Amino acid sequence: MSTEKSLSANEKETRVIEKKGTWMTYRPDIKVLDCTIRDGGLINNFGFTDDFVKAVYETCIEAGVDYMEMGYKASKKIFVPSNHGAWKFCNEEDVKKIVGDNNTDLKLSVMADAERTDYHEDILPKSQSVIDLVRVATYVHQIPIAVDMIKDAHDKGYETTLNLMAASLVKESELDEALEILSATEVDVIYLVDSFGSLYSEDIQTLVHKYLRFAQASGKKIGIHAHNNQQLAYANTIEALIMGASFVDATIGGLGRGAGNCPMELILGFLKNPKFRLRPVLKCIQDHIVPLRKEISWGYDVPYAITGQLNQHPRTAINFMGNNSKDYTGFYDSVINGD
Amino acid sequence: MSTEKSLSANEKETRVIEKKGTWMTYRPDIKVLDCTIRDGGLINNFGFTDDFVKAVYETCIEAGVDYMEMGYKASKKIFVPSNHGAWKFCNEEDVKKIVGDNNTDLKLSVMADAERTDYHEDILPKSQSVIDLVRVATYVHQIPIAVDMIKDAHDKGYETTLNLMAASLVKESELDEALEILSATEVDVIYLVDSFGSLYSEDIQTLVHKYLRFAQASGKKIGIHAHNNQQLAYANTIEALIMGASFVDATIGGLGRGAGNCPMELILGFLKNPKFRLRPVLKCIQDHIVPLRKEISWGYDVPYAITGQLNQHPRTAINFMGNNSKDYTGFYDSVINGD
Repeated sequence: MSTEKSLSANEKETRVIEKKGTWMTYRPDIKVLDCTIRDGGLINNFGFTDDFVKAVYETCIEAGVDYMEMGYKASKKIFVPSNHGAWKFCNEEDVKKIVGDNNTDLKLSVMADAERTDYHEDILPKSQSVIDLVRVATYVHQIPIAVDMIKDAHDKGYETTLNLMAASLVKESELDEALEILSATEVDVIYLVDSFGSLYSEDIQTLVHKYLRFAQASGKKIGIHAHNNQQLAYANTIEALIMGASFVDATIGGLGRGAGNCPMELILGFLKNPKFRLRPVLKCIQDHIVPLRKEISWGYDVPYAITGQLNQHPRTAINFMGNNSKDYTGFYDSVINGD
Repeated sequence: MSTEKSLSANEKETRVIEKKGTWMTYRPDIKVLDCTIRDGGLINNFGFTDDFVKAVYETCIEAGVDYMEMGYKASKKIFVPSNHGAWKFCNEEDVKKIVGDNNTDLKLSVMADAERTDYHEDILPKSQSVIDLVRVATYVHQIPIAVDMIKDAHDKGYETTLNLMAASLVKESELDEALEILSATEVDVIYLVDSFGSLYSEDIQTLVHKYLRFAQASGKKIGIHAHNNQQLAYANTIEALIMGASFVDATIGGLGRGAGNCPMELILGFLKNPKFRLRPVLKCIQDHIVPLRKEISWGYDVPYAITGQLNQHPRTAINFMGNNSKDYTGFYDSVINGD
């Protein structure tokens, strides 16, 4: 222990951070993606009313948000449609019921999970769809199928992103290999995804730096998707921006499974581009998010902090919170003991 | 605008950050100060039960926290004692009712506000008190009186800190002068205080770097006291630690006026020193903080984000929240218009 102490007292690491912006100016390359419906739908099985989805859509337009994610393109062979809300599948007619032909500056996206999407069938040619962007979500072991999904979506005419989930669990050598493979695809944006809300600012710095190294060489951009398990979603999002990420995910009121996401009202208040407007987001919160809190729960609480600190999937915390228990020590003991 | 755009797109600032720690080791110089009662008392006029204060005290001991702040030493000439709870004054007999002779490793502190403390009379010689540390809180224009308060406390035998409030409003030239004056005093620690929860990580980097430059030359340490108006209290606290601050303020469950403080459960989960224990803090939350939430409210909400973004005192947001209104756009309009 004394060695450790003297090491820590003496050791100083120096790091050079190349900053990508200043406070008074803004970076026009930064794009904001709203995933309120998609990430929030994980709480209520995509059971939002059309009014709610339409309110989010109109808010995004008025707020100058760049992309809105309508939901997932889940396989109807794996998931029975009648058991889930429409936004788990994003049928073209359901999307059009909300957005019409979407003659706006807002682009629309869907998320397609590797191994859980019948992408050949369910993702239409771009000419037949109002969707602009297909985001392929994958764990590192699913990269080969994700690469095929990117090719499929790209060839059909879509913009594409690759969202590599649970980055905090991926070994560095595997991550290097994955990023090398992805750099050789047609994907436009590679996302750093902190699925467990376990990354600290220094992790964000290191990872964005690494992602950028691969992406920039192949003309791609980097995105950030953060969770709030340790109250770091917003902090890590701006850290990633400062380091050079240019796509950011946010949700209105931080709506999202478990501890939730980077709140749109915080990130829009931070960004300096005058095309962004905060007030429509506040209006949406008071009219639609506040009432929703009577039906479903999300946001930081102690169990999420515990799983985040331990770099674990929050599912045990989500289950615990669902029981309305406040036995935090019991939860802590069970997680520490691996029960 | 096009100039601004090209500037922002091209401009790259490079900064060298000298890091003061690694992930696997720990820094024994880091001290954690619990200010649950003091900052939380601003919500309920210090109306905590003795049981609650005793629970926090025992939690701090079990958790390995270094200091616990009992409350303020407010002037009884300015504030009528019968109108406030005991912890606004921290009479020696009231403190001893909780801690006895405090034969523990936990040190005790009180906060003394410049111009609102009769420090000559009300701060006893250390030999007559169980208090170990006097923290002088001051705005920049009160520095002369704060310097006298530090001398008074130091001469009486106490450790001292200087908490320079509302740092986000202080002009750089004035801050330099203040830090130069403080460096010449006997104070042990100079605190960076983000009273409005308006600082971003880059501000923290710049300010801690500046504070350290003055403090290290005179053998002093730097502390950080953060507020959660923009969900950045914890993030900014660890940023300050990484930059070299060694005293951190935290409160159990983030209890504190308005958006609250850096949560003790997060910072103890982050620090690697094995003397710290998370479980007693979780136990205190479930037994004492959860019930308290039925009586008083604190924590992040939209109005605090708005005042934080605008670098304003949160008093308008606190008043708004007290009315249980969700008219966020009305609040935003009034703050923007300066009503």
